[in-house]
Amino acid sequence: MFPDGETVAPAVTAVFTAVLTEGPISRVALARRLDLSSAAVTKAARPLIEMGYLEELAATERTGPGAGRPASPLVIRADREFFVGVKITGDELIGVVCDLGAQVRASAHRRLAAADLDYVLTQLGELVDDLLDGPGDYRARTRRLGLAVSGDVDHSTGLVRYSPFLRWRDVPLRERAEKATGLTVTVENDVKALTTAEHWFGEGVGAESFALVTVGAGIGCGLVVNGRLVSGSHGVAGEIGHVGFDVNGPACHCGSRGCVEAVAGTDAIIRDAGLRFDDAVAAARAGDERVGAVFARAGEAIGCGIAAVANLVGPDRIVVSGEGLSAYDLFEPHIRAGFQRQAFGAAADCPLSIRPLPFEEWARGAATVSIKALVGQ
Amino acid sequence: MFPDGETVAPAVTAVFTAVLTEGPISRVALARRLDLSSAAVTKAARPLIEMGYLEELAATERTGPGAGRPASPLVIRADREFFVGVKITGDELIGVVCDLGAQVRASAHRRLAAADLDYVLTQLGELVDDLLDGPGDYRARTRRLGLAVSGDVDHSTGLVRYSPFLRWRDVPLRERAEKATGLTVTVENDVKALTTAEHWFGEGVGAESFALVTVGAGIGCGLVVNGRLVSGSHGVAGEIGHVGFDVNGPACHCGSRGCVEAVAGTDAIIRDAGLRFDDAVAAARAGDERVGAVFARAGEAIGCGIAAVANLVGPDRIVVSGEGLSAYDLFEPHIRAGFQRQAFGAAADCPLSIRPLPFEEWARGAATVSIKALVGQ
Repeated sequence: MFPDGETVAPAVTAVFTAVLTEGPISRVALARRLDLSSAAVTKAARPLIEMGYLEELAATERTGPGAGRPASPLVIRADREFFVGVKITGDELIGVVCDLGAQVRASAHRRLAAADLDYVLTQLGELVDDLLDGPGDYRARTRRLGLAVSGDVDHSTGLVRYSPFLRWRDVPLRERAEKATGLTVTVENDVKALTTAEHWFGEGVGAESFALVTVGAGIGCGLVVNGRLVSGSHGVAGEIGHVGFDVNGPACHCGSRGCVEAVAGTDAIIRDAGLRFDDAVAAARAGDERVGAVFARAGEAIGCGIAAVANLVGPDRIVVSGEGLSAYDLFEPHIRAGFQRQAFGAAADCPLSIRPLPFEEWARGAATVSIKALVGQ
Repeated sequence: MFPDGETVAPAVTAVFTAVLTEGPISRVALARRLDLSSAAVTKAARPLIEMGYLEELAATERTGPGAGRPASPLVIRADREFFVGVKITGDELIGVVCDLGAQVRASAHRRLAAADLDYVLTQLGELVDDLLDGPGDYRARTRRLGLAVSGDVDHSTGLVRYSPFLRWRDVPLRERAEKATGLTVTVENDVKALTTAEHWFGEGVGAESFALVTVGAGIGCGLVVNGRLVSGSHGVAGEIGHVGFDVNGPACHCGSRGCVEAVAGTDAIIRDAGLRFDDAVAAARAGDERVGAVFARAGEAIGCGIAAVANLVGPDRIVVSGEGLSAYDLFEPHIRAGFQRQAFGAAADCPLSIRPLPFEEWARGAATVSIKALVGQ
């Protein structure tokens, strides 16, 4: 955290996180929210104010009759520090600069002609330079870079164990990217990064439990339960794409049959429609019933997978998004129907937000991961 | 907690819980484990020692060269207080007396001729008297009773919203049972109670995440994620019985088709075998291939449901138990095969313990819930 390398008291992390995600918030409300004494909140906030991360708003509320001096809510200083976030896909780098409040200040992207590591790192270095040295002059106040990669990522060591779309295995991405950019790098799985962004700065704010489902080439899921991201003790969590749907269904690349992804992933739709994805979307929209049924079945499978999440962990709410939802109109009613059919009892009350995902959001998710690292989480 | 009604500092609850579930444990280890200062641990332990809940063992370890006086590990005094636990089923009350370490000291049961509330409460009062006034003379040191009931239970208010086997709806069980017994009552869903017992005193000790799957008339699941029991924001969690297995499968009582429970619950086995459950078990054991296939398919469905838990939340380990596992030998290989097939990648590394469940364990789970209430959790 700040200064780099120093360990920070848990109360400081808790106060910073709460102001970041729920501010402006008074010290009294923080004490109640975090189960800390007022003195402990004041002590934890002091270094954050001194370093310029937090500031006091003018007094706006009184805590009650006879409660003494008015409360001055704490709020972050959003432009105290900036963060670069980059999503690395098999054919593109998408980058953003965010402020401390996760607002996007600048964005840029680069096509990738190959997934070779040295080449990707060179492109990454140039993209970061473009972002930091362009209009806005963010360089002086930027120390951190978050990278989001699909696949099996060890967040704690920054190792990409396996990324199928990039065909990377055991790549020490954090170490290599720090050399290439000179920034402090944090690496995270892309779905987890996006889930953190929604949990801290989006629809998940304040939720004790929350799920984000992404629909695209794969069907993924990020989960927050009991207030924290679920990582999976054996390195696997949120694999909603491999929840069973139809035990007699098509073979899945995982070795099983009829998984949600084997019915509803982009490849499955291409296979069942016998058309390229964009052509299948066009045909279904033009009223082709056979192709329409492919999307209907895919949506139903996704809805059943989401119901498994609701039946097992019961999140406050679920957001469904992803690049596959460019075909939002074709999926949405069937996702809802599958969910309603399979959700058990009151689990069906869980609100579903189904919405397309701007691709820049993935990069914002990556930046959020580096904000989280600053805060010491 | 102690004295009743007084709120207790979070550090006291944390220290008590850690010694209860992981003791004997030194103050130094507690401080490290709980992220507290040594002074905070000493302060929190003091009232617990004064009230006789904890004691110091003779010094057995030194904390290191030059570290000063030897550490005296803290341990619970198991016979400081006793707890009654009763599982209420549609045709039986099963009761136990446990000590503070959740060891069963006495047990008793009563057949129920009806599920009428007044009648059940009378029987409950008599069962509790039998347990407390029998050999052991537990009465003087027993203040708390935990009740475990299947179905939709509001733990915080002690209301049984709906219990299908008892045909109870909106029964204020805590209030009524306190009047009937004179004890402080805690009510919990039976699967959650059993999960707490395993998490605090069984195979789940020390696990950040843990799942208990019960096989019987229903297929249930208790989940601990990020160190805490999962409750479900909409009142539903752990409904592994209503994870999808075969979208074209048999109709389920929940309104969907091919749920795990619709294939693998006791009623499904009776329906598919065309025999009473015990006769189906006997036929399969005698080599009847058709009936054997019914158990094989049921086991496979349960294994797929368990894989959904592993794929989504990635527990440290999973225990599979329940009265249905009296037919352990018929289910077990197929549960493992279904799990291995559907578990995604490293999720298949999650250890499965599959074992029969002594019925008394449900009552012990109920007692554990009242220990948890004492500790302030």
